[in-house]
Amino acid sequence: MKTLGVLGCGLIGGSFALAAKKYDCFERVVGRDLDADTLHTAIDQGVVDAEWQNGSPVNAICVAVPTRNIAESVRCLQVEVTKSVPIFDVGSVKATVLNSLNHEFANFVPCHPIAGSHNSGPAAAEADLFQGKTCVISPTQATNQVTVDAVAHWWRQVGATVMFLDADQHDALLATTSHLPHLLSCAAVELVSKTGESAFDLVGSGFKDFSRIAAGNEEIWRSIVVDNLANLRLSFRAFSDVIEHMLELAEQDPQRLENLLRDIAQHRKSMNG
Amino acid sequence: MKTLGVLGCGLIGGSFALAAKKYDCFERVVGRDLDADTLHTAIDQGVVDAEWQNGSPVNAICVAVPTRNIAESVRCLQVEVTKSVPIFDVGSVKATVLNSLNHEFANFVPCHPIAGSHNSGPAAAEADLFQGKTCVISPTQATNQVTVDAVAHWWRQVGATVMFLDADQHDALLATTSHLPHLLSCAAVELVSKTGESAFDLVGSGFKDFSRIAAGNEEIWRSIVVDNLANLRLSFRAFSDVIEHMLELAEQDPQRLENLLRDIAQHRKSMNG
Repeated sequence: MKTLGVLGCGLIGGSFALAAKKYDCFERVVGRDLDADTLHTAIDQGVVDAEWQNGSPVNAICVAVPTRNIAESVRCLQVEVTKSVPIFDVGSVKATVLNSLNHEFANFVPCHPIAGSHNSGPAAAEADLFQGKTCVISPTQATNQVTVDAVAHWWRQVGATVMFLDADQHDALLATTSHLPHLLSCAAVELVSKTGESAFDLVGSGFKDFSRIAAGNEEIWRSIVVDNLANLRLSFRAFSDVIEHMLELAEQDPQRLENLLRDIAQHRKSMNG
Repeated sequence: MKTLGVLGCGLIGGSFALAAKKYDCFERVVGRDLDADTLHTAIDQGVVDAEWQNGSPVNAICVAVPTRNIAESVRCLQVEVTKSVPIFDVGSVKATVLNSLNHEFANFVPCHPIAGSHNSGPAAAEADLFQGKTCVISPTQATNQVTVDAVAHWWRQVGATVMFLDADQHDALLATTSHLPHLLSCAAVELVSKTGESAFDLVGSGFKDFSRIAAGNEEIWRSIVVDNLANLRLSFRAFSDVIEHMLELAEQDPQRLENLLRDIAQHRKSMNG
């Protein structure tokens, strides 16, 4: 029976487990998690079929752990399974992981599905989480092309559009589209919290949309921020320049500020959703 | 017949018009708008009952125009109607408006319902927009108490909780809970746009929530930013300090960053919605 092993049964690992069976990539999914409660929930809720026993054979492995644990997990798995077993991750940062793996494993395919939720854990997992989403794949020179093709095929089967991007490019882009926005949202919630009780009554539905991502899992996000820190610093500098420019326009040329805000509103509307 | 005059038939003016009739504050609502299309849409969709002809008597007036036009509108209305007619606004900034009115009109009640949408115009108006929302009232020393009570009563009738706050306090708090978050969201969209086409494919559902407010009306927001600029500068400085602190923790003490992110996630979850 074609079996997938999932390391880390949280939101993303759990969702891939559900999707892999629903869309016939694998017939059976076994799971592991450092956290016993997470694993039990995943089994109880049918997110994975059973615990993945040490040494028990699998046909492919999805590594869905915080970014800082990916490299070590991949090294350990290389000892446990044969070199023909495809291993792919789902981490939000690529370059630091690949650097610490020294680009040495041909069967490791670095992946990042742009999908998530402010909810976490296997109870939040959804078989259709990847439908219509982008999955970035960042092969290195060492990565086996046949393995890349197999992994890309699974992502397409679960509904994602595959996009190939160099790891450094991926990390720089994601700093802007995801990692910095997450920090901005968190910092805004922190500022409101520090302002005191009365500020909570003055929070509207706009702020609630804006800050929904700040409820995300702290362990995942700590790892992302640490592992993509250089890009985040650059991105925040560019961001501050945009804000300072807006404040300057407000003082010196409000009509140009209005024009800029109109363009931005158009850009946002073109994103939908 | 008890008639409300609405000056500015957009989202907020239109919603108050609908709410005022649904919840029996007024029997009839007449409207004006500088933009002929907006007025016609408001009449066609039954948001207001008819055009508010110049000199036609009303029992109260809701001023729902961009903040920079509020003071001038109130001055003009004082000439048109008797001093017994309550006039209230719905603007997001208070102090600059009150300063340019020189705090001189006893029948003017400064109001700000914390309600809105990324959609604008009378077509987006909703009778229940204010249900469960906070409406801040910032009376000055000149404001007649009986008039304040009447206006507060209408806000409560349409479902809002009334909160009294000094204008300066209001503006400082709103800079943090609403005006800065709006700019942050706009600047993040601008940064993604400037990054180019590929960045749009890397935008997830989290960014879409985060940036929904950036689609808001540019005229309204230009006015808010200009009229609350000093508070926005202070607020952005405090905000930058929070971000810099987070980036520093990522470098020097990742566990403390994780603890901070956990507290922030808890605060956000306690907001609901």
